[in-house]
This record gives sequence, C-alpha cells and structure tokens, in this order.
Amino acid sequence: MQPLWTEMTPEKSSYFSMSHLNHKDVHVMIFIGFGFLMTFLKRYGFSSVGINLLLAAFGLQWGLLMQGIWHLDGGKIKVSILKIINADFSTATVLISFGAVLGKTSPVQLLIMTILEITIFSVNEHLVVGLMKASDVGASMVIHAYGAYFGLAVARVLYRPGLRNGHENDGSVYHSDMFAMIGTIFLWMFWPSFNSAIAEPPLSYTQLTAVINTYLSLATCVLSAYAISSLVEHKGKLDMVHIQNATLAGGVAVGTCADMSIGPFGAMLIGFVAGIISTVGFKYLSPILASNLGIQDTCGVHNLHGLPGILGGLAGIVAAALGKKDGASATMQAAALGSSLGFALVGGTITGLIMKLPFWGQPPDQNCFDDSIYWEVRNPIPHKYYLQVSDCLVRVAEGRFVCSSY
Amino acid sequence: MQPLWTEMTPEKSSYFSMSHLNHKDVHVMIFIGFGFLMTFLKRYGFSSVGINLLLAAFGLQWGLLMQGIWHLDGGKIKVSILKIINADFSTATVLISFGAVLGKTSPVQLLIMTILEITIFSVNEHLVVGLMKASDVGASMVIHAYGAYFGLAVARVLYRPGLRNGHENDGSVYHSDMFAMIGTIFLWMFWPSFNSAIAEPPLSYTQLTAVINTYLSLATCVLSAYAISSLVEHKGKLDMVHIQNATLAGGVAVGTCADMSIGPFGAMLIGFVAGIISTVGFKYLSPILASNLGIQDTCGVHNLHGLPGILGGLAGIVAAALGKKDGASATMQAAALGSSLGFALVGGTITGLIMKLPFWGQPPDQNCFDDSIYWEVRNPIPHKYYLQVSDCLVRVAEGRFVCSSY
Amino acid sequence: MQPLWTEMTPEKSSYFSMSHLNHKDVHVMIFIGFGFLMTFLKRYGFSSVGINLLLAAFGLQWGLLMQGIWHLDGGKIKVSILKIINADFSTATVLISFGAVLGKTSPVQLLIMTILEITIFSVNEHLVVGLMKASDVGASMVIHAYGAYFGLAVARVLYRPGLRNGHENDGSVYHSDMFAMIGTIFLWMFWPSFNSAIAEPPLSYTQLTAVINTYLSLATCVLSAYAISSLVEHKGKLDMVHIQNATLAGGVAVGTCADMSIGPFGAMLIGFVAGIISTVGFKYLSPILASNLGIQDTCGVHNLHGLPGILGGLAGIVAAALGKKDGASATMQAAALGSSLGFALVGGTITGLIMKLPFWGQPPDQNCFDDSIYWEVRNPIPHKYYLQVSDCLVRVAEGRFVCSSY
Repeated sequence: MQPLWTEMTPEKSSYFSMSHLNHKDVHVMIFIGFGFLMTFLKRYGFSSVGINLLLAAFGLQWGLLMQGIWHLDGGKIKVSILKIINADFSTATVLISFGAVLGKTSPVQLLIMTILEITIFSVNEHLVVGLMKASDVGASMVIHAYGAYFGLAVARVLYRPGLRNGHENDGSVYHSDMFAMIGTIFLWMFWPSFNSAIAEPPLSYTQLTAVINTYLSLATCVLSAYAISSLVEHKGKLDMVHIQNATLAGGVAVGTCADMSIGPFGAMLIGFVAGIISTVGFKYLSPILASNLGIQDTCGVHNLHGLPGILGGLAGIVAAALGKKDGASATMQAAALGSSLGFALVGGTITGLIMKLPFWGQPPDQNCFDDSIYWEVRNPIPHKYYLQVSDCLVRVAEGRFVCSSY
Repeated sequence: MQPLWTEMTPEKSSYFSMSHLNHKDVHVMIFIGFGFLMTFLKRYGFSSVGINLLLAAFGLQWGLLMQGIWHLDGGKIKVSILKIINADFSTATVLISFGAVLGKTSPVQLLIMTILEITIFSVNEHLVVGLMKASDVGASMVIHAYGAYFGLAVARVLYRPGLRNGHENDGSVYHSDMFAMIGTIFLWMFWPSFNSAIAEPPLSYTQLTAVINTYLSLATCVLSAYAISSLVEHKGKLDMVHIQNATLAGGVAVGTCADMSIGPFGAMLIGFVAGIISTVGFKYLSPILASNLGIQDTCGVHNLHGLPGILGGLAGIVAAALGKKDGASATMQAAALGSSLGFALVGGTITGLIMKLPFWGQPPDQNCFDDSIYWEVRNPIPHKYYLQVSDCLVRVAEGRFVCSSY
Repeated sequence: MQPLWTEMTPEKSSYFSMSHLNHKDVHVMIFIGFGFLMTFLKRYGFSSVGINLLLAAFGLQWGLLMQGIWHLDGGKIKVSILKIINADFSTATVLISFGAVLGKTSPVQLLIMTILEITIFSVNEHLVVGLMKASDVGASMVIHAYGAYFGLAVARVLYRPGLRNGHENDGSVYHSDMFAMIGTIFLWMFWPSFNSAIAEPPLSYTQLTAVINTYLSLATCVLSAYAISSLVEHKGKLDMVHIQNATLAGGVAVGTCADMSIGPFGAMLIGFVAGIISTVGFKYLSPILASNLGIQDTCGVHNLHGLPGILGGLAGIVAAALGKKDGASATMQAAALGSSLGFALVGGTITGLIMKLPFWGQPPDQNCFDDSIYWEVRNPIPHKYYLQVSDCLVRVAEGRFVCSSY
C-alpha cells in the first residue's frame, strides 16, 4: 500500500498551487483557529491547544488513510493535495466534537473518538457526496452538523451528574478570553477558504462565488450576533462567549449554499439568521440542554456548529428546490442532512459507550477543566505562588501572613 | 441594485487568485493586526479586538456599497475582489481613527463614525485617485494621513478635561503588551501586501517593486525605531509603545512611493526617517498635543499614521518631481495630500460634533478604558478575586485577612 | 552598488508569485514563529519577541548583502524574491543561536553575533551548495545544525557559573507557555513552505514532494513527541517544553531529504525518530550538557535544531547512497554536514570570545532572564502591585497588611 503522488503532472501545477494555498488557510483554521478558540477556559489552555494539536496531527493521518481506502488506485493510496484537504476536513469533525466534551475526557478517550468519528465520517461522506451526489461544498451538513451532534451524543452518554451545578474551573478569566479571540479571528478570516477549498474547478467563477458568499454571510452574522448579544444580556452589555462563537455561525450556515447562485442578499440573509439563532442558543437553549437533557456542552458546539449546520442544510434544500445550482436536488439535499444527523447520533452514541468504559483514564469530577491532571503545570496562576505586596513578599507561616523583605 | 460578479471570466482567474491572496493578507492586517495592536491597554482588550471586529465587519459592507455607488454598472453594483480590497481599505481609515478615541467612546458612537468616515473617504478617494489621478498605491495619504487626522479631529471635539491628569487604566500591563505585539508583528509582516495589493497589473514588475520597497523600508524603520527608543529613554532602555508602533511607520511612509522607481536606498531612507519621527513623536509630541491642544490620542495614531502619512505624501511629491513614476505630477500629489488632510480635519470635526450629542451612551470619565462598562467581565484581573498564598485561601472577614484551608 | 531587480520579466511573474507566497510563510515563521516560541520565559517576553524582531530586521538586510556579494551581476547586487528568501534563511540561523543564549546576552552582543553568524553562514552555504553541490533543500544542515551548534559554542564561551543552580526567572508561567504555543503552531503549520521554498522549479513535482514529505514527517513527529513526553514524565503527564519544541523536530529532520524520493514511509520514519530523540534530549541530555560541559542552553536548541539537524544530515547521506535523488552524492552530503558543524563550532567559539569582551553591556547574573534590564516595564506581573482581595485594597503599612476600602 505504497502511497504515490504521481497523479500530479506539471500541467496541473497551477491547480496544485491554488489548492495548496487554500489548504494552508484550512490548516490555520484547524490548528490555530480550533486550538485557540477552546482556550477560553481559565485553567485548560494547555489541553485546548495541545490536545487539539495531538488530535489533529493524528486525525489527518487517519483521515488520509480513510480517504484513500475509498479511492484506491490499482490497490494503492495516492496522496494529493485535495486528499490532504479532505483529511483536514475529516479532522475538523473531531475537533468540533472535542468542544462538546472539552475538560471532561482524557487524551486516550479522545484518540479513540478520533479513530471512530473519522471512520464513520468517511462512510457518511462517501454516501452523501459519492452516492447521493448531494451538494455540500462548505460542509454545513457533513462536517458541522455531523461533528456537533456526534459530540453532543458522546457528551450525553458521558453525562456527569457531579457537574450539574457547575465547576469552579468551567469558566474564563480575562486573559483566557483574549487567547480565545485569536482563534475566533483566524477562523473568521479564513472561512471563505474553507467553504471554497473543494469548489470545482478551483480557479473559477464557482470558487469566487463561494468566497464572496461566505464573506458576506460572515460580515452580516457579526452584526446580528452583536445586536442580539447586547439585547439579551444584562444592561445591554456584550458577552464574550457570544462574540467568540456566534460571529462564526454565518460561515457554518452558508456552507452548503456557498457555491450556489443565491446572490449576495441570500448569503447575507443566511448569515443574519445564523447570528441570531446562535446567540439565542447560547443564552437560552444550552442551559436547558444541560439541565433537562443531561447534555453538558462545554464550548456550546450546538450553537456554533449544530444549529447553524442544520440551518445550512435547510438553506441548501430550499436553494436546490429554487434551482440555484444545476443538478442539485432538494430530495437528495434533505437525504444528505438526514444521513449526516443519523450517522452523527448513532455513531456518537456508540462511540460514547466505548469511551465510557472505565479504563481510559477519564478525570474525576473535581479534576475536570484542569490542565494539571494531564500536564506538568509549574506555576499555576493565580494559585499557589508567593505574592509580593508593596515591598513585602507574602508568605504564610504558622497560620499567619508574614512579610519578608524581597 | 442586485450586485453581480459576472465581470469575472475564466481568463481572469489568475488575476483573481493573486488579488484574493493579497486580499487575505490585508484581511489579516485589518482583523488581527489592528485588533490586537490596540489590546495594549490593561483592561480594554475585549473592546479593542471585539469592537474592532464589529466596526470592520460593518465597515466593509458599507465600504462595498460606497465603492459600488461610484462605479455603478448599468445601475447595478458589481462585486469583485478588487472592490472588496478597496472596502477593506476604507475600513482601515476607521480603525486608525478608532485608535485615537480608544477607550473614550461607545460602540454606537463608533458605528456612527464608521458610516461618516467611510462615506467621506469615498468622496476624497474618488477626487484624489479618480479625478486628480494622483498616485497613492499604498495609501499614505488617502488612508493613513486621512484616518489619523480624522481621528484626531474627533478626539479634539470629544476632549475630556477629566482625563487631563491621566487615568488609572490608561496604560498597559505585561501580558497586554504581549498581546499587542501579535498585532504589531502581523501588521509588519503583511504590510508589503497592503502596499502592493492594488498595484496594476497585479503580477508584474510594479507589484514586485511595491513589495520590495515596502520590505526594505520596514526593515530599516525597525533599526531607527529601536535606536531612537533607546536614545530617548531612561538608561537606554527600550519602550514597548515605540516598538509596537514606530516599527511600522516605515510601511506607512513608503506607501505613496512604493510602486515608484525610488530604488532601495530611497525606500530605506524613507523607512529610516519614519522610524525616527514616529519614536520622537511618541516621546515628545504626544504629551504636548494632549496638554496644550486638548488632543488625547490614546494609541498615538498621530505618530504611527499621521506624521508618517504626511512624510509619505511629501516623499511622493518629491519622487513625482524627480520623475520616478511615469505620468505622476508633483502638483497633483500635493493637491492630493492637501485634499486628504482637508477632508480629514473638516470631516472629523463634523463627525465629532455629531458624536458629542449626549444620547449615544458615551462612558463617564471614570469608566473610560474599562471593558466592564460594555462587556460582561466575569473575572477581572487583577481585581476582586480570592487569592491563594501558599496553602491558604485568603479572604477578608470582618476587616481581617483570613486564611482558610484550600 | 545600486541593487536592481530587472532580472524579473513579466513571463517570470507566476514564478515570482509562488516564491513570494512561500516567502510570506517563511516570514511568518521568522517573526511570529521564532519570536513567540521564545516567550515561554515568565519575565522575558518583551525581549523574546522584541529582540527577535530587531535581529531579524537587521539580519535580513545583512543577509541580502551577503547573498548579493556571492552573486554580483556586473558589479551590482540584484534583489530578487529568491535572494530575499535566502536572506530570511540566513537570519533563521541567528534566531536559532539566540535561543541558546536567550536571557543572558545584551542586544549589542546579539547584533554582533548577527553580523558574524550570517557572514560565516554565507561562506559555508556557498561552499556546501555552490561548490560541493550538496543537497539540503530544507536546510537541516546549513541552517538548523549550523545555527544550533554555533549558538551552543557561543553559550559555552559565555558560560555563567553563577547560574549553575538555576535562576528564579529561568522558567515559565501559565500564560507565558500559552504565548509560546502561538509560536509553535505557526512554525508547525508553515514548515512545509520552509522546506519547499527553494525547491526548483517552484511549481512542480519536486516542490509538491517537499511539501508532502514535510507534512507527513511533522504529523508523525507530534505523535512520538507526545508519547515519549508522557512516558518520561512523572505520572504520565505531558510537559509543555516538549510539546512546544519536540513536535517541530520532524520538520527539521526531514529538511535535507524533503525533495528526495524517500516515500511517505521514509518521511514518517524520520519524523517519528526526530520526535523521540528531541524529547529524550530535553529530558536527559540538556541537564548533562549544562552540568558537565558548561553549556547552558536556555531554549534547548540542541534538542530542537541540533540533534534533529544532524539526523537530517545523516538521513540525507543514506538517501543519497540509496539513489533517492538524481545527482546527489553520499560523500558530498557527508562533507556538507561536516562543513556545517565545523564552521558552526569554530565560528561560534570565535564569536563567543568577541561577545565576551567586557564592554557590550551584558547583564549581571541576577538580572538575567528579566526584561526590566533592557525595557521599561511599567507593571511587572506578578510583582509589586497593590492587590485587591475581596473588597479591600491590600497595602503594607508599618510592616502590617492594611485593608483600605477600594
């Protein structure tokens, strides 16, 4: 099974170039975007960006194998940039699901999830894209909705009653929210590349359409996310959780339709609605899911990827029915959405049951959301360091605060 | 007014590709660069990067409309990558002005400024580029000088006597300065794309010239900024404010001449002078502007964009007089500089008067430079958290410090 | 000596475009990657990212001169994108060496090192690439091994007995480790561009090979680095030092062979081994070098660039012997490795002796690893600020802690 990449000819080098460039943008989204978006937790930054790197590096190799198995060429797996992009895409589903169970799972559990989720993804993708010929260029359905509901199903199976009343470390501090904004902004900027990366042929009207539709949807989504955040919060203030996440919902929701002739107003309408439902979901739906359905969704992936993913799928059905893309069928779009959700919920439940087996080193409730269980943390902030106040170094000796000279 | 992008033909796809790539670099400068550069304030990071995102997302839509109105095609606005780049450019003026009034204005005030500043920008740009045929490829005049003096005029109108003696939160802490360096470095790296993005035709000697001139100017500017910072500071130390800002002045100042045959020594001379005047401006001029003229310029945009923008305009006049660009006229260059400054000062003053109306939710003096007036801040650092010293959790009870076990 | 860039013709513009794009990725690695990777030290972030910017901006100008002197054209230095890439490359050697002496040298010392190291680099590169015709596309030998052993030789000469037992500030805190991960991830993502930037011709099978080999090597290296980190650490925990550095060793080690027909399994084998030796080096070898040989290697560049660089050189010898690249000779590859190490050790020793002269403003031992000796640090964290606990502002008065109301 020696992979080859001889399918590349010099004539195709320009094609390669553009694909490679889109690939690099997708790469930035996977490693910086997803990695830093999850660093909002006050004591879980090492795991967020570090385990994200581990899962992504592992997932893209596994994804390359899975991509290859569906497209064997004389019994061999041939590597191409397009397959590498698809491997990155399949990895994105895992990182979305990671967000749902962030802080409550061990690296070993997550590696198991990576193997299973990418494998099941490749089956669903083959079914949806290969057999149904459904259109999903920016993968609202096969990546975002699939990844979100897969992760929510896992989270449901791994429900922890001990965290019902929250956890001291399940929240942000000022600087952790700043790190998370690095992730948000890089995701926001490069989303047009994500939604246009596999548009065919790469250097064309179609790809340009996908870029501009995504661009407009994202820009509009920012406005509605800010407006609704301010509306639903105390005294009209903005909430960092909404800004970090709901501003991206427009990119998710326009995914399926990105390369269709939906026009700028279509794209902006999708982005506008996505920003609203995402923010409202964070504010009102997530607490209900946690308290009533036992779905503890750490990052709120339901609001960033789940609901906007379904919105994207529905928009695709409508656009296909309105004839916005040659050859697209509303029936097949609906079947693709159903298939993606079905594989996600069934696959996620089975995966959750396997992850629940008691020997994968899962953290006890009190160590959730805490890097120090899996990482050497030399100097945790703000805990356990000697503190200097004015010119004194504060220590505790015999139960009293003692001021030593510095 | 249905936008169309049918002007794209497959033959133009390569052109599109390069433009799209430059556009992505400009995008990074707008959202990461400007956003993080302003996070240096200790308690204003959410607003810096968050409101930057809001203004930019809104501004690029408004800018696209304004661009379109000057270039109607059969009564319709056609969207192209070049128009999107220009929309990003028009947004940059607002973000520059934002720096002058950072911490002292409400989001609503800033959205009003966005609408007015971009509208007036599009008039000035049409006059300077369309009618005068002045040369300003990297926009030293129409973006940097315009944005800076517009913002300074607004700041003058919004003068707050209550902040005359400074404000506790108008300064940086260690980690906020680190976040700001993310902005600085991304701006520095991608400035060659900014100055060459609209060079015509894209894939040519002209664009390459703009890239290399900018590259050399920036590299030289770093050296003079460090040297002068060390010279003017106590004990030869460096000042983060200078490093974060003055190292970029070379990119601003070489903007107008970037595509002219000024040669590497011309570019390096411009960068060298820009680094000097920018650093000296931060050290000596800004305090004078604040105390004598009532211009409270939070980020020092006068030193990063104002003075280097004028330097760029002057360099353009000299270069045109020396015949460094075919068809460029020193007279028209001077007129362009005057026009940009005039529109900036008049437009900024009018905009400031509108922003001064008392119902836009402007913050009271004591809440300036503080995120918590517009954002839900859960755990402000370094205030108001329980602190652990050694193995004790320090609380205050009945006026005494109490050590509870952790 | 007027530089010209007339060698660019419109026909070469596509070539230029791709080179420019690779150049931008290399630029991100130099300024963000190296800069932030070194911010892991708790009190040395300004210097890490700030002095990195200074050295890189100076080094790339000096490197452009040095590149030009070897390739004079009619007595003139012609500037091209390829020469600019090579100037960035020569700067990388300095930034690698900077890591070895980080925190223990003054800016003046480092500028001297920059001049000497780049000059010697250009001699070695001319010898290895120009005369020996050795193959080193990703520069495992001429950049990584050279830069590392040059820096280690300097560090040996500048040995500080006073730091034998460590230094309070020679370590990380939580957020400084997070900033360092920004450097790690950007280096990791763009390493394929580094290793393929000078592959000839740019848009071809060869460049694609270099991209994919590097990609696979890096992905595998992450897995072995995580596995070994967990194996060698207390209780199976991960260590941020390993994750920040050893995950990149695969990019270093595959450099020499990146454009050879080593196949995916060859690339993955190299990455796998690199991750192991790098992590083991950090854990076991660095302490021995410090205590027994007097080599105080602040960032552990021996483990990230030194050992993997030698591994890359050895892999290149083997690959050449196996005929994996037309025209490559195992003898010449071995000579290139020897030459690079020889120039590094001799050059580094001489440079170190010059840097040891007592008038370059080197910091005393107690001020090592501390920004405040070279920077205005307004509000160092966590030292010397008034702290609020609950609703009290804690001050020290007459040796007692006093609670003032806020």
